[in-house]
Amino acid sequence: MAEMGLDGFLVPRADEHLGEYVPPCAERLAWLTGFTGSAGLAVVLRDRAAVFTDGRYTLQLASQADPAAFELLHITDQPPQDWLAAAAPGGRIGYDPWLISEDGLRRYSDAGLAMSAVTSNPLDEAWTDRPSPPCAPALPHPLALAGVASADKRAAVAEALRGAKTDAAVITDPASLCWLLNLRGGDVAYTPFALGFVLVRADGTALLFMDPAKLDTAARDWLGRDVSLHPREDLPAALAGMTGQRVRVDSAGSAAWFAQTLHAVGATVVDGPDPCALPKACKNPVEQAGTRAAHGRDAAAVCRFLHWLDGRAGQTTEVGAAERLVQFRRDVPDFRGESFPAISGAGEDGAIIHYRATPETDRPLWADEAYLIDSGGQYPDGTTDVTRTVWTGPGAPPAELRDRFTRVLQGHIAIAAALFPAGVSGPHLDALARRMLWQAGLDYDHGTGHGVGSYLSVHEGPCSLSRAGKMVPLQAGMILSDEPGYYLPSAYGIRLENLLLVQAAEIPDARKPFLRFETLTLAPFDRRLVEPAMLTGAERAWIDAYHARVLREVGPLLDGPARDWLAAACQPLH
Amino acid sequence: MAEMGLDGFLVPRADEHLGEYVPPCAERLAWLTGFTGSAGLAVVLRDRAAVFTDGRYTLQLASQADPAAFELLHITDQPPQDWLAAAAPGGRIGYDPWLISEDGLRRYSDAGLAMSAVTSNPLDEAWTDRPSPPCAPALPHPLALAGVASADKRAAVAEALRGAKTDAAVITDPASLCWLLNLRGGDVAYTPFALGFVLVRADGTALLFMDPAKLDTAARDWLGRDVSLHPREDLPAALAGMTGQRVRVDSAGSAAWFAQTLHAVGATVVDGPDPCALPKACKNPVEQAGTRAAHGRDAAAVCRFLHWLDGRAGQTTEVGAAERLVQFRRDVPDFRGESFPAISGAGEDGAIIHYRATPETDRPLWADEAYLIDSGGQYPDGTTDVTRTVWTGPGAPPAELRDRFTRVLQGHIAIAAALFPAGVSGPHLDALARRMLWQAGLDYDHGTGHGVGSYLSVHEGPCSLSRAGKMVPLQAGMILSDEPGYYLPSAYGIRLENLLLVQAAEIPDARKPFLRFETLTLAPFDRRLVEPAMLTGAERAWIDAYHARVLREVGPLLDGPARDWLAAACQPLH
Repeated sequence: MAEMGLDGFLVPRADEHLGEYVPPCAERLAWLTGFTGSAGLAVVLRDRAAVFTDGRYTLQLASQADPAAFELLHITDQPPQDWLAAAAPGGRIGYDPWLISEDGLRRYSDAGLAMSAVTSNPLDEAWTDRPSPPCAPALPHPLALAGVASADKRAAVAEALRGAKTDAAVITDPASLCWLLNLRGGDVAYTPFALGFVLVRADGTALLFMDPAKLDTAARDWLGRDVSLHPREDLPAALAGMTGQRVRVDSAGSAAWFAQTLHAVGATVVDGPDPCALPKACKNPVEQAGTRAAHGRDAAAVCRFLHWLDGRAGQTTEVGAAERLVQFRRDVPDFRGESFPAISGAGEDGAIIHYRATPETDRPLWADEAYLIDSGGQYPDGTTDVTRTVWTGPGAPPAELRDRFTRVLQGHIAIAAALFPAGVSGPHLDALARRMLWQAGLDYDHGTGHGVGSYLSVHEGPCSLSRAGKMVPLQAGMILSDEPGYYLPSAYGIRLENLLLVQAAEIPDARKPFLRFETLTLAPFDRRLVEPAMLTGAERAWIDAYHARVLREVGPLLDGPARDWLAAACQPLH
Repeated sequence: MAEMGLDGFLVPRADEHLGEYVPPCAERLAWLTGFTGSAGLAVVLRDRAAVFTDGRYTLQLASQADPAAFELLHITDQPPQDWLAAAAPGGRIGYDPWLISEDGLRRYSDAGLAMSAVTSNPLDEAWTDRPSPPCAPALPHPLALAGVASADKRAAVAEALRGAKTDAAVITDPASLCWLLNLRGGDVAYTPFALGFVLVRADGTALLFMDPAKLDTAARDWLGRDVSLHPREDLPAALAGMTGQRVRVDSAGSAAWFAQTLHAVGATVVDGPDPCALPKACKNPVEQAGTRAAHGRDAAAVCRFLHWLDGRAGQTTEVGAAERLVQFRRDVPDFRGESFPAISGAGEDGAIIHYRATPETDRPLWADEAYLIDSGGQYPDGTTDVTRTVWTGPGAPPAELRDRFTRVLQGHIAIAAALFPAGVSGPHLDALARRMLWQAGLDYDHGTGHGVGSYLSVHEGPCSLSRAGKMVPLQAGMILSDEPGYYLPSAYGIRLENLLLVQAAEIPDARKPFLRFETLTLAPFDRRLVEPAMLTGAERAWIDAYHARVLREVGPLLDGPARDWLAAACQPLH
């Protein structure tokens, strides 16, 4: 830092795509600090250093990072730009322009810091055993699964770019790359991303910047003649050729390097959302049929697991149960892996919203407690994500738990059964899911739902059901999770999650278009935890109809005892 | 225009405060075009002209403006900046910088038009019989009603300005002026505004720019020594003295003249909301007690009117009924006038959301139809706004109307009875009011509620219950209307409106602060239009408890037959 004339340096937990899952070669924060949480940032000054993370990870940070070397801070209570502005007022702070967005950078500049981009990351020189970048094969995602050819997707994106009077757009989100070019890969955990960058032009052609070793001849042929393949090292030269052009870059989602480089070569940078984000979110009919099929197969594994779990208290642990669920999923045709690390929390661990059972934290599932399991699978035809909260038995659950569970279920149903006019955005619906909890002075500190990809990321924008989310009107084809919860610290957690598909609602005589949700996920809710007296007639009818559907659609996939168990679990409420 | 080198000129329906009600001297649009709606804009080119208004006023525009002289257009379907960009591409368009905000102006500049401020409005030269500006007395609003002294309000605003490192703020909203200086006036209809401008400084002193003729000696003394009074003509000179200072101006709510003038004199314009808006919205305990008292007195007039109306079909008209309601209000102690022109619509007229009965449109209230009456009063201790929809009888209302009325009432109750955590904004709650309508494929095309002032404007920001409103977290002391509706064109309209006061909710063991609504308005809902079988137990209990409270609080204010009628109207539901 002294050589570079820097007072400090930023080490965010990020790769060049600024996404949720990063390959091992980009785990600079973990290498430097030992902290392995999925969100965080270190700031290194000449004589001080600090690591910041959010409320999900404060305990984990304290257990992993060395408090003698780092101040361990809460990123919301003490934002790093404020800490830096106090610790090094007006200081010259280095950053790697590949690992932070323009919007992220602006927060530091606005705090009066002199932000200075480095051309090569000094950590990478010190990190001698740094893993190589991932190089998993990038494979065609066939039309029978993708539904729309890449050329047609590129034509639609190109038309949008022309409409916005732009010449090209930079695509840095690997989900958008995979969607646009109908490719899937294996470069990061849980998500079939092929990492790379795309420059899509307003004439529908595209440049793909990706290690050519990832693509065999078939994959190169699949790209077609209008998509040219270039090694990542050619990216600066390609941007250098865009002098005078208008190029869209997402200032919130793309690394600052892109806009800075385009500015430097005399291109006009047009701030705007990734043009693939919205069309990717609206699944086409082939993707919709695919996700229904994937959810049907996944449901068999989840129901077999719930049957296996029944009466298993004292005989398994959080880690053991999660592993058993993966085993059931491995039996499902075309299972490609979990869509995220399962959250398997018994009793008080269930109250930790982003709990991850490890050998150190693992504990048995005891009798007569609540157990929360949030998991999902990746299949070529769809991505699943399901949460159930069950009572381990054999006793009856306490009245308070039944009350809370029923309120969460009422919130889940309020979303799942909602009709709403076109133009309504997900954040507008969030209160419906919370209403019955709010009426008891209760709430949950997470969003009600997130978008979900089609054999892509289980967390996908731009739509959500979260109040903090973007105001994106819901449209037919969007897939969202519906997952209200309730958490009593040190006691129990409840979360009930199905994935929903937005559909046009057919309403006779309606004077404007309405939308509704089709429930994709099929698994029973634990009837022992439902208090029927709290339900309206419509809520009770919804639960009974849903359970009848689960039995009708999943029952035929099960054998013997599992099928009998499902039939009992899907009986109408008393 | 030719002399001034202009291709066109804007004539908005606006005065220098950009508010809802404007004095006759500012009715330039009506003078030019004949159109008297409360929202609209004319664009005059050398050989063409157009008038734009929104869906509320398209019929009125067609009946009032001359289609041979003006193209009559819908302001949303065909925004004036787009029309201008097509009719006079790149043209030089004149505007009066006192009659448009910076944000409004930007829409024209962004459309490629060369916007040119005029120093004097050419219409005012042609309008030879233009009325004088209003000059009603500006009177002290005593501490017993205002609750907080102006010096204390100014000290709080000054602290906020210092916190934002600004030297002063320009206040152009007369509601803010009246709140800040504890003045009330009579310069516009329906709202006790004293029109003027304030420059409030970060030391708590203020300059009031107002015709000195409005203030007698007592009012001048009331302002105190830290508020200096200046004629409006001194405003340019006062701004000229602010070179080098940082001055907050609301780019959305203040006339562009302010920011332009401050820029010209070398001040730094800091865009930000009117610093009075949020504290004004949060009524202090004295204002809260005042509005309860005002609502109690107003309720007696509304209930006497509803009793008078009962069985009156065929014997009155829309105008007649509205006039009778004003007569009842005139009997209320301290009634100062209506808070807006009453909406009195029978049958199909009730379906016109902003209907105004005039001698031309007036019609009798017939037997067996729905009648909608939306009205309010101004009292020194509070502003009221109430809507009821009643069945004229004597027959029973049809099942469809009862179904729709009940759904609207369920939406009203969902808001009125809601508990919600601090941090939730009004737009988040809107869906609760619509849910039961949405479930039947129905909706209403207006917001669910607006903020209400304390003996000020019946429409007050910054909070609302509208999805299109600002994301301002609700806070204790805010007053909002709760007014869902349903409108079947050419048939009937339903709207049910009470005013609600946000209060802290006392919830034992709650792990974060919750808020609730206290209902201020007291008048029965027409039980003949309620379908009890559609209600949940909680909804039914809310209605019965509300009616019991109405009878308990309003009954003692009524005599004989009116009291007996109220007792019957407030019986529990069958």
